[in-house]
Amino acid sequence: MSETKAQEKLEAMGNDIVRSIKAKKNPKFSTLARTRSNILYDPKIGYLKLGKATEERDFVNVAQSKRFMQTVAIASKCHKFVKENLHTTIRGLFYQLKYSLGEDVDENIFSEQAESNPLIEDLEVALDTTRENLNLNANRKGVLAGNMKVLDKFGDERVEIDCSKQGRSGWAIPSDVDNDIKFVDVKAKYCIVVEKDALWQRLNEDGFWKKENAILITPQGQAARGTRRLIRKLADQGLPVYVFTDSDAWGWYIYWTIKTGSINLAYIGSAVATPEARFIGVTMSDLDKYEFLNKLTMNASEVDLKRAQEMLGYEWIKRSKPWVTELERMIKSKKKLEQDALQGPRLTFVGDYIKDKIKNKDFLP
Amino acid sequence: MSETKAQEKLEAMGNDIVRSIKAKKNPKFSTLARTRSNILYDPKIGYLKLGKATEERDFVNVAQSKRFMQTVAIASKCHKFVKENLHTTIRGLFYQLKYSLGEDVDENIFSEQAESNPLIEDLEVALDTTRENLNLNANRKGVLAGNMKVLDKFGDERVEIDCSKQGRSGWAIPSDVDNDIKFVDVKAKYCIVVEKDALWQRLNEDGFWKKENAILITPQGQAARGTRRLIRKLADQGLPVYVFTDSDAWGWYIYWTIKTGSINLAYIGSAVATPEARFIGVTMSDLDKYEFLNKLTMNASEVDLKRAQEMLGYEWIKRSKPWVTELERMIKSKKKLEQDALQGPRLTFVGDYIKDKIKNKDFLP
Repeated sequence: MSETKAQEKLEAMGNDIVRSIKAKKNPKFSTLARTRSNILYDPKIGYLKLGKATEERDFVNVAQSKRFMQTVAIASKCHKFVKENLHTTIRGLFYQLKYSLGEDVDENIFSEQAESNPLIEDLEVALDTTRENLNLNANRKGVLAGNMKVLDKFGDERVEIDCSKQGRSGWAIPSDVDNDIKFVDVKAKYCIVVEKDALWQRLNEDGFWKKENAILITPQGQAARGTRRLIRKLADQGLPVYVFTDSDAWGWYIYWTIKTGSINLAYIGSAVATPEARFIGVTMSDLDKYEFLNKLTMNASEVDLKRAQEMLGYEWIKRSKPWVTELERMIKSKKKLEQDALQGPRLTFVGDYIKDKIKNKDFLP
Repeated sequence: MSETKAQEKLEAMGNDIVRSIKAKKNPKFSTLARTRSNILYDPKIGYLKLGKATEERDFVNVAQSKRFMQTVAIASKCHKFVKENLHTTIRGLFYQLKYSLGEDVDENIFSEQAESNPLIEDLEVALDTTRENLNLNANRKGVLAGNMKVLDKFGDERVEIDCSKQGRSGWAIPSDVDNDIKFVDVKAKYCIVVEKDALWQRLNEDGFWKKENAILITPQGQAARGTRRLIRKLADQGLPVYVFTDSDAWGWYIYWTIKTGSINLAYIGSAVATPEARFIGVTMSDLDKYEFLNKLTMNASEVDLKRAQEMLGYEWIKRSKPWVTELERMIKSKKKLEQDALQGPRLTFVGDYIKDKIKNKDFLP
């Protein structure tokens, strides 16, 4: 992302369009193509990103003029939000557009939100910015505990939140972890990301993050944009990142999304992907190391098996022998393993498992 | 709920069973029936609760002996968790049972978690306690901001969380808001519960709770047990509770669940229901008061229309003229309204709407 403020970028775009109109030229802007063929995975950088193929959005083009006008309307609203210093969601934006365009034109320009979503992405890419910088909050999810402080804002007030003093709750990770927010006194050795909130609570109750001096995060399932971005920022501060999920299709998906980013967010790949992340488990090979787990496996679902087969076809997985072994083992045994199963012998075993894994550097790439 | 500690209740139950066995009597315990016919709604108390029909769980009974044994195994595990002062989820309990019974008996006593869930409820009812008191965390969801403090615990440490200093995040409401946790300095005039996190964030950014001196809660959709219980506790402190949702099937369901409890949780009805709660909107009759909303309606779905029709059949709704008017209006117009639509004219309108509604006592029972 470039350092120029979103407001200036929006104004530059608007001025450009006005200049074109005054010069009786065709107003247009350029964006990177977000088609599958322009989404690239380069193993050297380790995350999904857009290639160089560009697309023009063009007003004097029957197929595009409506979309062009809609995008300009979105840009204008975002400019207002940024100037007012107020945030909303894409749903809120949708209603603002429906409201104000309804006054000027005869029919509503947006009847469904599905129409406005891709145009917001167009704008993010064209301006080389993020929706968070355009004051559009994404869904938030995820909780954190550990030795670090958050300097946040509430109105004109600065607020300091100590993530080691949040009791059983933890600090709720916001949608935007870049604007008007800072992370200070990050005094941890590593960051551990735990798929399920239930396991996060287990580890938090055991004081795991305190004893280990770790940052303990749960994305509460698939990681939201804010949580992915925060993990990236913690990695930028030099913290190793370990991911701990179920050994099944969903767990692996959560891991790969944190690590390599996702196709949907390839246009902001470098901001949300953490290729340095390592997978500590649970793994099918844990069945050899921890005998008791053999009676705690579950049957793999059709989805798990299909997904494992698909993953074996990916270039970056083919090259990783430990991942191939994992996936083949599930396919052969038709069994899967949940992180919750580690509580079988005693509730506090979960933390010991993680410590062992990290101590022995027993993780997958 | 009685005041006796869960540990004592579990021990009394265990001793009772041992005494029966020693006296060569049939070990058994009694629980309230959770069948539909024993779930009652009394308009005078305003919430769903169990009637007086009891059921016996009996060891010397071919149809029941497996279930009886399973329940005793669950009780034994919960007793251990309570004594250890460690928490887990019903999933963690399931794995502990699978693990330890697997050692003693030839086949696993629980193969699926679905088998153990109703037995946990049996135990809650038989002991007149909650799973939170048995150290079983339920899913947590929901966020709060406002002028109040939480005295929480982390290990041996007491932690004070100031809910007016949580920035954009808010305080994450835990699964258990009764044990080892206190709410102090609750200096608010009322409590407003907002269906969607997006709208909570909007109101929080505007400093709504601060200007209004309100407690601002979002259950983030349907309210989890912990959030329902917390709303009940705030009402017990004398705070009026207002609920603000979409005007559709899902929004109404969220409201009625907070207000009257739910069929699934009828066995702890009085602990999680808040009959004093009032519905402030959005309502179909807002279309008469706020002209602009007329161009921001959405089409009601089949589910919305079916649900509205069903609700018209409920005794407690039939008696409420404003609710009948609401539901009939949706059915007739086939339109619905989202709380997000209030952002149409300007983002800050949402707060003004709530203030107006409360000032004019313009809410539904």
